[in-house]
Amino acid sequence: MGFDALLRRMQELKDLSGLISLTMWDQQTYLPVKGEEARAQQLAAIQSIFHERLVDPALGELLERAKAGPLEEDQRAMVRVLSRERDRSVRVPQSLVRALAEAQVRGVTAWRAARQARSFALFAPALQRLLELRRQQADAIGHSGERYDALLDGYEPGMTVARLAPVLLRLKERLVPMVRALAGAAQPENVLLGRRFEAGAQWRFTLRLLEEMGFDFSAGRQDRSIHPFSLGIDPSDVRLTTRIDEGQLSAVFASIHEGGHGLYEQGFSEAHHRTPLAAAPSMGLHESQSRLWENLIGRSRPFWRRFFPVLQQHFPQSLSDVNAEGFYRAINRVAPTLIRGNADEVTYNLHIVLRYELELLLIRDQLPLEELPRDWNRQMTELLGVTPPHDTDGVLQDIHWSTGDLGYFPTYALGNLYSAILFATLRREVTELDERIRGGELKVITHWLGDKLHSQGSRYDAEDLIQRVCGCGLRDSEFIEYLKTKYSDLYSVAL
Amino acid sequence: MGFDALLRRMQELKDLSGLISLTMWDQQTYLPVKGEEARAQQLAAIQSIFHERLVDPALGELLERAKAGPLEEDQRAMVRVLSRERDRSVRVPQSLVRALAEAQVRGVTAWRAARQARSFALFAPALQRLLELRRQQADAIGHSGERYDALLDGYEPGMTVARLAPVLLRLKERLVPMVRALAGAAQPENVLLGRRFEAGAQWRFTLRLLEEMGFDFSAGRQDRSIHPFSLGIDPSDVRLTTRIDEGQLSAVFASIHEGGHGLYEQGFSEAHHRTPLAAAPSMGLHESQSRLWENLIGRSRPFWRRFFPVLQQHFPQSLSDVNAEGFYRAINRVAPTLIRGNADEVTYNLHIVLRYELELLLIRDQLPLEELPRDWNRQMTELLGVTPPHDTDGVLQDIHWSTGDLGYFPTYALGNLYSAILFATLRREVTELDERIRGGELKVITHWLGDKLHSQGSRYDAEDLIQRVCGCGLRDSEFIEYLKTKYSDLYSVAL
Repeated sequence: MGFDALLRRMQELKDLSGLISLTMWDQQTYLPVKGEEARAQQLAAIQSIFHERLVDPALGELLERAKAGPLEEDQRAMVRVLSRERDRSVRVPQSLVRALAEAQVRGVTAWRAARQARSFALFAPALQRLLELRRQQADAIGHSGERYDALLDGYEPGMTVARLAPVLLRLKERLVPMVRALAGAAQPENVLLGRRFEAGAQWRFTLRLLEEMGFDFSAGRQDRSIHPFSLGIDPSDVRLTTRIDEGQLSAVFASIHEGGHGLYEQGFSEAHHRTPLAAAPSMGLHESQSRLWENLIGRSRPFWRRFFPVLQQHFPQSLSDVNAEGFYRAINRVAPTLIRGNADEVTYNLHIVLRYELELLLIRDQLPLEELPRDWNRQMTELLGVTPPHDTDGVLQDIHWSTGDLGYFPTYALGNLYSAILFATLRREVTELDERIRGGELKVITHWLGDKLHSQGSRYDAEDLIQRVCGCGLRDSEFIEYLKTKYSDLYSVAL
Repeated sequence: MGFDALLRRMQELKDLSGLISLTMWDQQTYLPVKGEEARAQQLAAIQSIFHERLVDPALGELLERAKAGPLEEDQRAMVRVLSRERDRSVRVPQSLVRALAEAQVRGVTAWRAARQARSFALFAPALQRLLELRRQQADAIGHSGERYDALLDGYEPGMTVARLAPVLLRLKERLVPMVRALAGAAQPENVLLGRRFEAGAQWRFTLRLLEEMGFDFSAGRQDRSIHPFSLGIDPSDVRLTTRIDEGQLSAVFASIHEGGHGLYEQGFSEAHHRTPLAAAPSMGLHESQSRLWENLIGRSRPFWRRFFPVLQQHFPQSLSDVNAEGFYRAINRVAPTLIRGNADEVTYNLHIVLRYELELLLIRDQLPLEELPRDWNRQMTELLGVTPPHDTDGVLQDIHWSTGDLGYFPTYALGNLYSAILFATLRREVTELDERIRGGELKVITHWLGDKLHSQGSRYDAEDLIQRVCGCGLRDSEFIEYLKTKYSDLYSVAL
């Protein structure tokens, strides 16, 4: 009986967070331009009600009482997950929450102006304020000497600098020579250059791929937005978006990527719906699903052996003189770039390591802000051999710091590492995986991931769950091995 | 200062009701089918929070304190409107609210099953329960002997049976002979019969008309849904829907109709945004705007003199052998029908009078439910000369009673009467109105309505506002005069 009252509160919180997701989805898809201000107020209203319900002392009492009593395993996990979220919220005073919200609005405005002027100096004061507030927030939440841990934990529960730093350092040390070796080798031809791909056909092809992946369109949909994203309003209502550019096929990979997220959101166990367990345990693990589909499957030779003919049917003119192998080579070119969003899967993690190392110093107050652009540029040159001509293509390129979201970037790298670990396990457990992909049996993968990962929801922390499914924790071996095999073949060099 | 705290609560209520509207809009447009159950729970969650905030005793105190203090005129109106809404909510005990919500769900289910089986008997027990609860609700809200008044007041604040009954009686007495006279005259040819109108061109034409009407697409949009509707999420964010059937042009009239509602929602004064005044004073007055646009303008000869050539450009094949006059005659055929939703503007109000008279008896407990279908059929025969072959095309045709919404139907008739009164005033105040419509100057009308009506928001009750704008209260003279002039010309009979 005691748990019933708690469960009802869990359900209400989940219903409210579903509404928040719907509100954000609409904001990015169909909201008329003049509605933006009213929408910001509506969103603030429901977020503030969510917060009020979450920190309500009566909920705290129900959680404490539940912890003291006998619980089933899933109930215990629900209590653990909700308590963690609630504790983080309760510890941060309302005045700080408000100050952060204001600083974020100012941050985004200043960041936009600074990008326009290509000058980091215009953004520095706003970032300084955000850093101060985030340090205060970290102290309020609590940590054992490393403030960054408290921030990281908001996106990747359980992860710490102590655990992460050596993994990312080793990854960097192995990636840098790989990037150099590939830069010295002959580039595969880009057979896609200068072709046009009609928007309607791109749209139909992305829907076809999502269906092949097993995305359930009676429990979700795809729309268009300026930046592709995915949101789970409920496991029965998952919204993906993609962005179509007729000059390239980026929408295809954006849809596969968001589809990977979407399958996770649709895959939670019925028993977990409307509870705190109907969620991925971390952003990194969520990202592992999008990366696994986008890169390890969606940029693989067997995948395009199956789907290139289908793609060709959608673009009979544009692709008449291209074959599957040429296409495969074109979509897997490795080339250092200034912009993270354009990076290939070999160089991508170096962009992350750079940001992680800098933001760790910033939070520790070990890097004066005026030195940040110079350090950024120097690191880019050292790691990738390219140097930003101005701040807009350098330190100002990502929105994350403008909203104070330090601690988020590492989850992208974690996603890549976890995706490779999962893929290696998948390959061990599903016989003749390549043949099955070549045969179009993508749902074998969907079911495996659903069974091992998605249906577990937030029962376990991310690394714990990887350990249970794959028999190892966070490491770079599988990822590096995957890159070596793929790119030594593609570039005919020893890596 | 005191008003500031009250204003913040008003704003939060408005933000929440905007989110409720968004949630309902999505439910009818883009929600995936499997998401329906979760959506119902999400909607219930936010509606219950809205209710909780509305009945909060602290809000009651702020309202009482404001009433006692000095207030500006608009502030006084805000207090009056919100107090009325709050009083209605406070007086109804939570147990009754819950019982009604449950009975509504059961009502809709039973109604669907009864329609399927074409048997009112299957719906009767659920309707009986709804009637009992609605009577209890009316008693809880309070009334001076006529329970129906308390229900009517929920849709049409200030309206009573004493005021309404003689108007509708007179209307009936004047319509019945008119319908008979028209039934005896030669019908205009239906030149549209059997033609096909491609969906894409229909869609483009409806958008064009909405633009001509002055609907602001940077503060609203049109989408598709099974039943056309309009919702104001905020004056800066107004959503319309239409429904396209390639066998007819009903979408054109649906879009004009919803556009009329939409202009109202976009037209509230900036000073009233996020306050209780940013709303129409009644459903009837809201409906007057959709009817005015759909019928008095959108089915007029000058309108189609201007827009038939544009329509023809959208359907060069389907309409090549039709001219503006033939089109005008085809869309204005009067023919008694069993179904309210298909009724023309002459017979429409008789459908309403029939429902009003029956539901008044039901609420008064003066009509045993088992006699309802027989009474319905007899009235149909008397008023319109057609007799339902079964209950699905008779007493079961509308959803309103299945949700217990007795008291709503009269607002449709009020809308028609108000629309004619407004149109007569418009014609007096705007010189050469027909010429201007023929010249496509629809925005002259939009601005007049905006100035006289929309920008007033809920400052005055509906009939009060009509009195101020038109110099007369609710009556049927203008409506009857409009019908006589139009249809004696179209049918060449004296009316």
